[in-house]
Amino acid sequence: MRNVSKENITSAFLDYMGDDTDDRLKFILERLAHHLHDFVRETGLTHEEWRKGLELLYNAGEISTPQRNEFILFSDVLGLSSLVDMVNSPDNGTPSSVLGPFHILGAPDVPVGVDLIGNNEGQAVVVGGRVLTPQGDPIKGAELEIWQTADNGLYSNQDTAQPEYNLRAHMRTDADGRYLFSTVRPAPYTVPDDGPVGELLHATGRHPWRPSHLHFIVQADGYRSLVTEVFPSDDPYLDEDAVFGVRNQLVMEYQERTDVNGLPDDLEIKDKLKAPFYVVDFDFVLTKDTGSNQRLTS
Amino acid sequence: MRNVSKENITSAFLDYMGDDTDDRLKFILERLAHHLHDFVRETGLTHEEWRKGLELLYNAGEISTPQRNEFILFSDVLGLSSLVDMVNSPDNGTPSSVLGPFHILGAPDVPVGVDLIGNNEGQAVVVGGRVLTPQGDPIKGAELEIWQTADNGLYSNQDTAQPEYNLRAHMRTDADGRYLFSTVRPAPYTVPDDGPVGELLHATGRHPWRPSHLHFIVQADGYRSLVTEVFPSDDPYLDEDAVFGVRNQLVMEYQERTDVNGLPDDLEIKDKLKAPFYVVDFDFVLTKDTGSNQRLTS
Repeated sequence: MRNVSKENITSAFLDYMGDDTDDRLKFILERLAHHLHDFVRETGLTHEEWRKGLELLYNAGEISTPQRNEFILFSDVLGLSSLVDMVNSPDNGTPSSVLGPFHILGAPDVPVGVDLIGNNEGQAVVVGGRVLTPQGDPIKGAELEIWQTADNGLYSNQDTAQPEYNLRAHMRTDADGRYLFSTVRPAPYTVPDDGPVGELLHATGRHPWRPSHLHFIVQADGYRSLVTEVFPSDDPYLDEDAVFGVRNQLVMEYQERTDVNGLPDDLEIKDKLKAPFYVVDFDFVLTKDTGSNQRLTS
Repeated sequence: MRNVSKENITSAFLDYMGDDTDDRLKFILERLAHHLHDFVRETGLTHEEWRKGLELLYNAGEISTPQRNEFILFSDVLGLSSLVDMVNSPDNGTPSSVLGPFHILGAPDVPVGVDLIGNNEGQAVVVGGRVLTPQGDPIKGAELEIWQTADNGLYSNQDTAQPEYNLRAHMRTDADGRYLFSTVRPAPYTVPDDGPVGELLHATGRHPWRPSHLHFIVQADGYRSLVTEVFPSDDPYLDEDAVFGVRNQLVMEYQERTDVNGLPDDLEIKDKLKAPFYVVDFDFVLTKDTGSNQRLTS
């Protein structure tokens, strides 16, 4: 149209789309234009502010590599990644939470009860629980991928001092749906703040810290794949995760223990554990696969 | 907060901002998060769709250079650039319209009446008018920067066959606020559609064409700088400008003429004009500089 105005530009945008545009794409773009246009109208965005926003995006492109994607980081610190996780989480299962950039394929297959501590420094933690249906039935043979930082806050693929696949594992639940491993407590760490995302964080008085967490992907035939992370209840950054990943249901209690009585016999390190150590009991609930919104991770 | 949910994440985002965050920045980010979060909630954006959006941004970063900024192009085809122009245009002046990426500094100073046709092919057009205040008083000595494509749809800085500064000029209005030049009719052209913006256009059945136009920057001491473009009323793409730049007030009539009677005597080419040619009469209205929202172009 030739009489584009502040008021009609959103409908002009819609009118431009061809009749054979995919319905879902059309809906998404209609909502996107609606909200971005309202944003400009409500803020009376100046040319200088518009240029600043575009500069942040341009600089994000400059600093991004396949290993460091600043656009995902923008999505993370704006809460968008977490919100996408939440709108796609079924109400009756364990909530999903950000995958993050540190997952790698090929972690070793290990049995239930494995020790991941090896030569790692740090507080020993025994983590175990079950993978369940929403009805509470155990899921046998469910696959878990587990990854976490070492005590220094770095993942194995960020730290040449760590062995390949350090603190990474691939495990299947036993006949009772159980998983179990010993590890060291992961450490809080910062998201990269030396780029445009850091500029945004600094300008708004925000820090780049994430609370410590264990990452999990939990999958079983016929169930929705779950990508999530669990957080210790005493972490200093639990209430201020830079990327909004914490949910009530993903907080686990680190129970301090001084003896191994009552720990399962298939815990590989059971006889060698030195007190004090911590025990975490955390169950995952998978929901039926409805064929939609599947999160693909590999 | 540790109990982040679909419902409270927008307020969590706000709570994260420090008390000494600049008020305007806080307001802009609050509105941005409000709208982006609503967008995700209303669409139930899937992980796959989220990844696709981030891929478009990543690819925009890959293809962008200082000469080709794909983020600005995204802003253009979404109508954001035009909307920023419109919300910053005073109601009582000539509307602004997109600057575009082809403006360069240093165009030659030329007198009122100059001929820009030189060796250019194409239909001859005599363009003139006045620079006025909202009250209709002429503004003497107002500066105009003028640039346009040649008949092939390319600007001089896109086309090595054209002389440097071809069809570019810097002129000051005379004592009556008049500007005047002869030129060739500019041609419609396409925005670059071989990148992620092109992917979006193709997926929605949109073409990349812009109607032909003359670019102007009009400036005078004490007045808001005006960045705008004017379009011929008979252009085939007038109702479907890919970047939403057309406004009713920016459409000019190309009047076909067969003789030079009545043309101003200071028109350099007057005695050499071959019929038929076109005449355009277009006045610019500048508003008082209020010190805000100034568009900086040089």
